[in-house]
Amino acid sequence: MRAIHFLGIAMLSAAIIGCQTHPALAPGSAAPQPPASSSAVLAASTAADWREVPPEQLLVMTLAGGGRVLMELAPEFAPLHADNIRQLARSGYYDGLAILRVQDNYVVQWGDPNEQQPRSVGAAQRTLPGEFSRPIAGLAEFTPLPDGDVYAAQVGHSGGFAAARDPARGQAWLAHCYGALGVGRGMGADSGGGPELYVVIGHAPRHLDRNITLAGRVLQGMDQLTALPRGTGPLGFYEKPDQYVTIASIRAAADLPTSERPALQVLRTNTPLWAAYVDTRRNRRDPWFIEATGHVDLCNVGVPVRQTPRG
Amino acid sequence: MRAIHFLGIAMLSAAIIGCQTHPALAPGSAAPQPPASSSAVLAASTAADWREVPPEQLLVMTLAGGGRVLMELAPEFAPLHADNIRQLARSGYYDGLAILRVQDNYVVQWGDPNEQQPRSVGAAQRTLPGEFSRPIAGLAEFTPLPDGDVYAAQVGHSGGFAAARDPARGQAWLAHCYGALGVGRGMGADSGGGPELYVVIGHAPRHLDRNITLAGRVLQGMDQLTALPRGTGPLGFYEKPDQYVTIASIRAAADLPTSERPALQVLRTNTPLWAAYVDTRRNRRDPWFIEATGHVDLCNVGVPVRQTPRG
Repeated sequence: MRAIHFLGIAMLSAAIIGCQTHPALAPGSAAPQPPASSSAVLAASTAADWREVPPEQLLVMTLAGGGRVLMELAPEFAPLHADNIRQLARSGYYDGLAILRVQDNYVVQWGDPNEQQPRSVGAAQRTLPGEFSRPIAGLAEFTPLPDGDVYAAQVGHSGGFAAARDPARGQAWLAHCYGALGVGRGMGADSGGGPELYVVIGHAPRHLDRNITLAGRVLQGMDQLTALPRGTGPLGFYEKPDQYVTIASIRAAADLPTSERPALQVLRTNTPLWAAYVDTRRNRRDPWFIEATGHVDLCNVGVPVRQTPRG
Repeated sequence: MRAIHFLGIAMLSAAIIGCQTHPALAPGSAAPQPPASSSAVLAASTAADWREVPPEQLLVMTLAGGGRVLMELAPEFAPLHADNIRQLARSGYYDGLAILRVQDNYVVQWGDPNEQQPRSVGAAQRTLPGEFSRPIAGLAEFTPLPDGDVYAAQVGHSGGFAAARDPARGQAWLAHCYGALGVGRGMGADSGGGPELYVVIGHAPRHLDRNITLAGRVLQGMDQLTALPRGTGPLGFYEKPDQYVTIASIRAAADLPTSERPALQVLRTNTPLWAAYVDTRRNRRDPWFIEATGHVDLCNVGVPVRQTPRG
């Protein structure tokens, strides 16, 4: 039974293949075989189908236990916050802070556990104007996903990020999909800035779109956040300091010694291969499937990430 | 800052209030105050707005560590599987089996770790015909959610379960929302039956709808499953037996001594109060929100569960 179920589940797993790195993408990988699967399409990708994550946009969070979470900032959507978060990281602001909150099916949040004497942000800003959306005009890239959306007039992908648009208002914004990196704020639209950050760990809370600043997304290491014990206090806050998960450091890859610098690539989301990939997510042709869905939700597409191939 | 963020996050947390029990629902709770919030609407509910979960449909899974997960079977959608799973539980089939797989943003799965000598299912069935959908005709209740859906022609709620309908085919089915309880199967549509079960722990994998049998949903204790270490093997399977999470027992509440029997109620999903509740999920009027979304995704509604009030 187990082997059979393993097989069945193997087909199921295509559902999140886009959220994982792909060893199969190493040079010499097999050409795609019909029926096209996500992995077959990715195996047929060339170097031109991938873009390097700029080291200054790649954040490396190291937890006290040694776990690493790699995140990409999105300066096209949140330029002020991306710069501020990078500056906070460079100055060591986050080092020694902690994950204070893990609310099931919602968010992991980190910040300064010391309410009485909050740490100085140094030359960075504690608060910034909210960057909840931006003009469609000037956005370098947007590939629409024609499958429809409950929350927005248009959804699609921009530079590897799940995003949405409202042509009537001429605005575009990042979507709160699983793994989205957000900027905690208070009641005021301008009350956040980067000292307190959160990551979506559950079903996409899309109602937060355009209500709070998204500054990027997690590319690797989600399991370092999602497997943490849920907080038992209100809103999933940890009730005792000894429950806090200490953050050893957060640094931009560009600020790390070359030898310690991770290198990741994200699949380009404006290529013919991307269109073929999305189609494999929309129409499941794996033999396990009985009903080819014919549609795919923005947050179920998943934008593949891989280690930069050596050499 | 912390206090401020706590406030802000308090508003955010409305996003999953529907997935939690509500201490605020105890007798004597405050009457709703405009603008209506989810908690205010629930605080105004009466006993008639809630239904008792039948003890024979309420599954109690106890993990070796003592954690409990409470699940409700959905006999209207999967009658054969609900009966079979209940029989497997009654016979003690699941006792001593284990969680074998935790795949991030996807599923937790449990079954028999012994591939060589699988445990006997006794008088129960190892496999059953798939119950992927059922006729719309004869379904006791279905309250449409008019907000639209990427995957199905119609979505809504039936007896507290998130469901979908296709009038063209005259079929209805349960939706793969967070917490959905499914029946692992192999390549064949009839290769599952109940010995191996899974629970959705991530963004709704709705492409599985109508491809595999859903037999119910988790009502309480999701954090006992979601905070487990992710499996490092292919598809999130644990690679070493010492990583398995042992299941002490699974029993229907009806088969437990009265003193050990949990009692839960689920908010009725076919009442005026339900309509008011859904509206608070669709239009966020909490002062924290700047953009009232105006739409809500089926899997973001959340059907409230509470302990049965004493007396």
